[in-house]
Amino acid sequence: MIADKLFDAVKNQGPVCVGLDTDYNIIPHEFSKNYKTKGEAVYHFNKEIIERTYDIVACFKPQIAYYEALGLEGLKAYSKTLKYIKKKGCLSIGDIKRGDISKTAEMYAKAHFEGDFEGDMVTLNAYMGINGSIEPFLDYVKDKDKGIFVLARTSNKGAKDFQYLKNEQGEYLYESVAKALQNLSQDYIGNCGFSSVGAVVGCTNNEEGRKLRKQMSSLFFLIPGYGAQGGGAKDVIPYLINGNGGVVNSSRGIIGAYKNCDINPLDFGLASREAVIHMRDEIRAELKNEK
Amino acid sequence: MIADKLFDAVKNQGPVCVGLDTDYNIIPHEFSKNYKTKGEAVYHFNKEIIERTYDIVACFKPQIAYYEALGLEGLKAYSKTLKYIKKKGCLSIGDIKRGDISKTAEMYAKAHFEGDFEGDMVTLNAYMGINGSIEPFLDYVKDKDKGIFVLARTSNKGAKDFQYLKNEQGEYLYESVAKALQNLSQDYIGNCGFSSVGAVVGCTNNEEGRKLRKQMSSLFFLIPGYGAQGGGAKDVIPYLINGNGGVVNSSRGIIGAYKNCDINPLDFGLASREAVIHMRDEIRAELKNEK
Repeated sequence: MIADKLFDAVKNQGPVCVGLDTDYNIIPHEFSKNYKTKGEAVYHFNKEIIERTYDIVACFKPQIAYYEALGLEGLKAYSKTLKYIKKKGCLSIGDIKRGDISKTAEMYAKAHFEGDFEGDMVTLNAYMGINGSIEPFLDYVKDKDKGIFVLARTSNKGAKDFQYLKNEQGEYLYESVAKALQNLSQDYIGNCGFSSVGAVVGCTNNEEGRKLRKQMSSLFFLIPGYGAQGGGAKDVIPYLINGNGGVVNSSRGIIGAYKNCDINPLDFGLASREAVIHMRDEIRAELKNEK
Repeated sequence: MIADKLFDAVKNQGPVCVGLDTDYNIIPHEFSKNYKTKGEAVYHFNKEIIERTYDIVACFKPQIAYYEALGLEGLKAYSKTLKYIKKKGCLSIGDIKRGDISKTAEMYAKAHFEGDFEGDMVTLNAYMGINGSIEPFLDYVKDKDKGIFVLARTSNKGAKDFQYLKNEQGEYLYESVAKALQNLSQDYIGNCGFSSVGAVVGCTNNEEGRKLRKQMSSLFFLIPGYGAQGGGAKDVIPYLINGNGGVVNSSRGIIGAYKNCDINPLDFGLASREAVIHMRDEIRAELKNEK
């Protein structure tokens, strides 16, 4: 079960998930100028970040949109990045947020759990339903040690547009999704007590966080919204259970950390390591305060 | 405005949208054996379908999942397919159903409205909100002659899971999405009276169809569910206004038509042409009945 591997990674290396939202423009020019294509520069930038942080993070999460934006060469960089994460013995989450039905969903599952774009876990969108759009991924969860995180409540402003619509029972849409996921997750629970079926839950509101954590007690959480999106270590705590059961993502705050330091930009890898340590220790300190 | 181009295509060539859900296994072995890679076989299969039908369809809609499933070579076929559609003077809808926020959504817009994967229109998912996840695409709609179709109500079984949740005002989720889109569409209405901001609305229920068409009077509809998914010509009519304002998708029913004919499988292109003509004429006949 991938949930157990992720649990161990969080326990031993901390809950930080490094978001590889590698916009070409975030790469120091002094570094990118050495590569013939943007795709190559992106891959080698990622490689350096991974090399410097793989021993202190729970996992890496390449956001595929940044790679798609560079076309075929970008997706080659995406593929190579996933392979390098695996080579370092680390876990990956392909942040793809795909959502489609039946045969098409099967194709997406094949695309991201096999072959060129294989990752350990992926993010999914359930607007088209659990039946059909999520189920084709579950065979891989069961038999191939893969995991999924389905969008429940996101941390952006626009989340209010639909996720906060209340149904006749006074339940938010995101809570309906959460309930469906909690049900679904039961067949995929690992020894650690968490399921390989997880949810994306932004860290934006403490009270909601506590409630959601109760409702979705067996789901692993992928928690975006740390740093650049406004959440801090304190905001993360309600989403964890004894400091585990969730990974906390930061992207620009880590891969762009060199911009906030007075260092040689070519040392961006070291700056990202410092940023991970800082974030991890901030969260650990808050966890101690909580006790 | 892309809406005007699509309107003219429907008017002059009929409302059929050919779904290029090109699973490698749908290609006749007699054909695919001539190509070194699966990606090459897929592209050349598509090319033949396009060649045989471009003058009698409104547009083509490659479903990117089928290409992603073949990895990098599949996406190369996706890219070449889009380019060939353009070369034939036809319109394309990249069926990508992407949905993400702000900077990431910008990246998806760039990915699918520029460069290797450029299409004329794309499908999107608004679970994360209109604000943020749809807006980055609108600059392209306004300035670059591009169009979007946002998922409202889909035609699969699982659509019931969330799209049919009723809010406190007794409104289904898909209606809330529809309303938001109807509002959004106003700034992008072409001379034809329809907007370059459209919606995906499955053709599954006549009464609902009529209601939705009224609520979303200025949206172009992308209508899946014809043929393989159970909808017939009769079911399509409520979604159109005077026979326009919508394109009706069929995928397997067209690209796999050769399987239902007693012909040489290598003539799959001719079979797909016959299938398009049959579908177009069925819809036209129903439109006449309606009057």
